[in-house]
Amino acid sequence: MTKYEALNPSFAREVNDSFARQSMMSLIDARLTRVEPGRVDITLPFRGDLTQQHGYLHAGIITTIADTACGYAAYSLMPPNAEVLSIEFKINLLRPGKGESFVARAEVIRPGKTVTAVRADVFAVNADNELLIATMQGTLMCLTR
Amino acid sequence: MTKYEALNPSFAREVNDSFARQSMMSLIDARLTRVEPGRVDITLPFRGDLTQQHGYLHAGIITTIADTACGYAAYSLMPPNAEVLSIEFKINLLRPGKGESFVARAEVIRPGKTVTAVRADVFAVNADNELLIATMQGTLMCLTR
Amino acid sequence: MTKYEALNPSFAREVNDSFARQSMMSLIDARLTRVEPGRVDITLPFRGDLTQQHGYLHAGIITTIADTACGYAAYSLMPPNAEVLSIEFKINLLRPGKGESFVARAEVIRPGKTVTAVRADVFAVNADNELLIATMQGTLMCLTR
Amino acid sequence: MTKYEALNPSFAREVNDSFARQSMMSLIDARLTRVEPGRVDITLPFRGDLTQQHGYLHAGIITTIADTACGYAAYSLMPPNAEVLSIEFKINLLRPGKGESFVARAEVIRPGKTVTAVRADVFAVNADNELLIATMQGTLMCLTR
Repeated sequence: MTKYEALNPSFAREVNDSFARQSMMSLIDARLTRVEPGRVDITLPFRGDLTQQHGYLHAGIITTIADTACGYAAYSLMPPNAEVLSIEFKINLLRPGKGESFVARAEVIRPGKTVTAVRADVFAVNADNELLIATMQGTLMCLTR
Repeated sequence: MTKYEALNPSFAREVNDSFARQSMMSLIDARLTRVEPGRVDITLPFRGDLTQQHGYLHAGIITTIADTACGYAAYSLMPPNAEVLSIEFKINLLRPGKGESFVARAEVIRPGKTVTAVRADVFAVNADNELLIATMQGTLMCLTR
Repeated sequence: MTKYEALNPSFAREVNDSFARQSMMSLIDARLTRVEPGRVDITLPFRGDLTQQHGYLHAGIITTIADTACGYAAYSLMPPNAEVLSIEFKINLLRPGKGESFVARAEVIRPGKTVTAVRADVFAVNADNELLIATMQGTLMCLTR
Repeated sequence: MTKYEALNPSFAREVNDSFARQSMMSLIDARLTRVEPGRVDITLPFRGDLTQQHGYLHAGIITTIADTACGYAAYSLMPPNAEVLSIEFKINLLRPGKGESFVARAEVIRPGKTVTAVRADVFAVNADNELLIATMQGTLMCLTR
């Protein structure tokens, strides 16, 4: 597992502040549960109003937590005064979104001055196991103010 | 523009019924605004609680309406008694999600017995123009009951 | 169809020169058959040594001509003294690579100062028809020297 | 690292036979260097005629070995008398294709009766190091004869 060094000493506070400004994260009760250089986790409890037609977590919500975790994982390695932007991502939906809660674990694959590649795995969490339900590979851009 | 024929005579009703069972669609006030063989539109008014840290529509919500439109576009061409499943998709986020409302327009590229490829464009809609903000390319699977 | 303006008056000559330096293009007998602002076509005759185990054109070669066409379509809109770099792409393989020749048609979706999104469709060409066999969506970066 | 069991006792021989029938693999001097249940490596020596305009390995060739490795990794877990088909893939190009040789290492993420998700990392190999130059995430389909 690659060990990354943060360029911005206050990256953790800035990730938390930015996350707190995302109304979407409050709407769905998502929480930041890990913020380390190049690695960010987001946790989401299951809720019946976040579901698709079969009562499982909507692919759009699985994607929402994965993309947000990827964005902050990339951001954690950017210099001070940067902004992060999702350019694109691809996600494979591997199993139904069936679980008591969910966690998206993002990890930078290749940080760059302008573009950063990140991967995120999303797990369904139950009392006695965690099951991989989706995997994302995406590209983020660093904008300097 | 390819002209598709539906195999399921009640596809439009079934798409509407399935959409109505998606709690996620009610949560965000998304509406089905076109259901034709191989083509489905979903419209979403802007709402402040669906935003990211800069106050624009969250990429996860842009993705949610695009993926849902793709799913039903694929479903509209499937035989009776089928289920549709998103296998994977990729989305490019082209401009910020800034608009009074948004529309995702999905169109089947290549229908198949088992897998169907679909594209969706998402537009930000304002009084006097529509601007392309994202484009998705995805793969859906047909499950027969 | 969007109409683009080239920023580099000698873009067509530069695309041709760059293409001529790609040894890979000679190896497979690929030719540039259209170079316009934001649109580039690459044509490839079928050859038995470019095939997979069933005798059809290898997905890697379908991808090679699609990616190269995307790269030059993006490059055609960049300012003088730029370099183009593929960041990533996604391709759906829709039908077998069965044909007398093949053409990849790339078109810029969204040009940008730093990143450009491009789409390419690949067709199998026979005496009396053209059939869509693959579609690519990719992201290119502009590097200025 | 997940441990997979092969369903087809002669999977290794069949992967080798199928690989030998891919003319494209001979054309570029690619070799199968690992065939295990759910894991396949393909190795490629650098050659000047496989390059793009800057003399680095062409993205299309990086993709060719990654896609082929993904295909056989998926195939290694399929039942006897199956065929494997690439439905789609996405690749991020992380560093220039600069090296004495290259290896694509594919690993199944999620095997399935009909569709299988696979990841491949491509490394540039030099006397004293290996550097990750690309990463692919793709979807393969199992066809039964």
